[in-house]
Amino acid sequence: MKDIRLFLTDVDGCLTDGGMYYSANGDELKRFCVYDGMGMVLLSQQGIRCGILTSETTDIVRNRARKLNLDYLYMGVGRRKDLTPVLRFAPALAEPVALPYMSKLDACLAICDELGISLQQVCYVGDDVNDIDILSKVGLPACPANALPEIQAIPDILHLQHKGGDGAIRELCEMILHNNNIL
Amino acid sequence: MKDIRLFLTDVDGCLTDGGMYYSANGDELKRFCVYDGMGMVLLSQQGIRCGILTSETTDIVRNRARKLNLDYLYMGVGRRKDLTPVLRFAPALAEPVALPYMSKLDACLAICDELGISLQQVCYVGDDVNDIDILSKVGLPACPANALPEIQAIPDILHLQHKGGDGAIRELCEMILHNNNIL
Amino acid sequence: MKDIRLFLTDVDGCLTDGGMYYSANGDELKRFCVYDGMGMVLLSQQGIRCGILTSETTDIVRNRARKLNLDYLYMGVGRRKDLTPVLRFAPALAEPVALPYMSKLDACLAICDELGISLQQVCYVGDDVNDIDILSKVGLPACPANALPEIQAIPDILHLQHKGGDGAIRELCEMILHNNNIL
Amino acid sequence: MKDIRLFLTDVDGCLTDGGMYYSANGDELKRFCVYDGMGMVLLSQQGIRCGILTSETTDIVRNRARKLNLDYLYMGVGRRKDLTPVLRFAPALAEPVALPYMSKLDACLAICDELGISLQQVCYVGDDVNDIDILSKVGLPACPANALPEIQAIPDILHLQHKGGDGAIRELCEMILHNNNIL
Repeated sequence: MKDIRLFLTDVDGCLTDGGMYYSANGDELKRFCVYDGMGMVLLSQQGIRCGILTSETTDIVRNRARKLNLDYLYMGVGRRKDLTPVLRFAPALAEPVALPYMSKLDACLAICDELGISLQQVCYVGDDVNDIDILSKVGLPACPANALPEIQAIPDILHLQHKGGDGAIRELCEMILHNNNIL
Repeated sequence: MKDIRLFLTDVDGCLTDGGMYYSANGDELKRFCVYDGMGMVLLSQQGIRCGILTSETTDIVRNRARKLNLDYLYMGVGRRKDLTPVLRFAPALAEPVALPYMSKLDACLAICDELGISLQQVCYVGDDVNDIDILSKVGLPACPANALPEIQAIPDILHLQHKGGDGAIRELCEMILHNNNIL
Repeated sequence: MKDIRLFLTDVDGCLTDGGMYYSANGDELKRFCVYDGMGMVLLSQQGIRCGILTSETTDIVRNRARKLNLDYLYMGVGRRKDLTPVLRFAPALAEPVALPYMSKLDACLAICDELGISLQQVCYVGDDVNDIDILSKVGLPACPANALPEIQAIPDILHLQHKGGDGAIRELCEMILHNNNIL
Repeated sequence: MKDIRLFLTDVDGCLTDGGMYYSANGDELKRFCVYDGMGMVLLSQQGIRCGILTSETTDIVRNRARKLNLDYLYMGVGRRKDLTPVLRFAPALAEPVALPYMSKLDACLAICDELGISLQQVCYVGDDVNDIDILSKVGLPACPANALPEIQAIPDILHLQHKGGDGAIRELCEMILHNNNIL
């Protein structure tokens, strides 16, 4: 945990409690947590890059990434190849670049390559079966308390005490900051 | 549980926690759960047809059914005959067909007839008094932890540990997948 | 409980969990509960009139009252006299009539007079200090589990096990229906 | 607690549960609590001034402050100097005045100066690291049950039993009212 340079997380169930609000007029919402946002801001201030990898493609996540001024946002990763292109925002404030199909692990490797770091220097938070591959490869894999059993069973995964959307990300950010002797 | 071919569920209290959000501007929202959505996607990938039967008629549910690419959506079922027609979407992406009054059990039987399967091959999830009839007839009746006492008391009903909107549907999907030796 | 003819309830904290959602664009939302709605529908089917008394004036509540086809809706009751008129909808589907200041008890008495019943035949659910007066006068006063201490301390008040917005109203409806030998 | 003349609070995590709802269409929402609103109204009726200090700049908070007819609202306080000006509303119904950078403590001192009171007569509620400075200086510092560990550890801070957005503010208002022999 002492050499984390890149902090990546899934959205639904990690930055949220897994709730997806649908409106009759066609709008959709997700509920994020103020503590998590502050946690990623604190990481950024210490030079740790922060980003989001999600299989969905929705302006909800782009709006949240903008608010937190994140370094990376990949949307549509890991979806079936014929459905949607991956959209890459780097930083999250910029216009997207459309890319062909890639998995979450592919996206993570692309960022590592760009930053000149290894997978060992990456922390990733995931909670469902489409996160198993990347969680099995990064240096610091972690999951919120509400993660599916298959995720909880990944060897050496860090089990956070808080649930997604209720401070799990902040809990992990504080652990990283303390172990880097930053706080 | 080894021969389920059709998975049907009620909406409020099963796919949601029973909350109904009303806005001052006239919009309405429901909160769904990402884990439940993934569960039905996993069932579909194994050839089990998935659908929703609801007494309400609202674009909220249609929007959610579209997102999950469900096979069937019946809205307005079981309502008083003079109020609204039943709208049938099959698949959920298609335009609706208006039908005369039918109960939830009627809708289920129509789908069974179309698929050439029996009620014994159907799993249905319900939580309130208007689900008693269909729950008493299908092969695998189930209810979330928050179901009304009358529902909990149905003989041989499967009592899920999770609440509606908090993973009850996913819990059941995993059970079906495991018992079919699919996972 | 055997002769209840009129069922009235407060909104925030009784039909909801007390949450008030504000949006940046100026919209407001409240979260109602499907079980409570079904409970009032069941009461109506047995000839028990149902209504809402609230100090707020918002289309959120009007939209919910319409959906449930309630018999009475009074908005703005008990507010300072110089702020807003009371709006009376009877039934909730009708256009409003503007009335001068009245308390919740005044509104209740007006409905009793119209129906030719006494306060002893009224059930009222409240949770905060502005409900003390009416709760002290009706035949069946009740409060959800989250009611303020001053409300919980009202002599002979019925303490519901569920919280507002989580089935408290339905719990009470079922008690009334059972004690009237209706169910 | 017997001489509190000014009641100030943070927003996210204090007046809310820390949830920040983002919509696909660009709207944002926060969930407030009816009990907290009534608490501040009761304080105002006893001559205690009420206000909000928040680092965010959003119409969500302005709309809520208007509804409660608060005396003061400072938005954008404590943010990096190059990002946004502080907006001051006094009372919350008025048009804003734009001010240069100031911390939450600066804003509090400005109000004290205007009212001719000392920091000892101020109650402030906060929950995260950007509240430490002001919480260490006011006469009555308090935090909701969900406050971060660094906040819980502030000497002599009052630990409220309720969580933010679930009645923490009302709990504190009642304590102030009772200790002032007002109730």
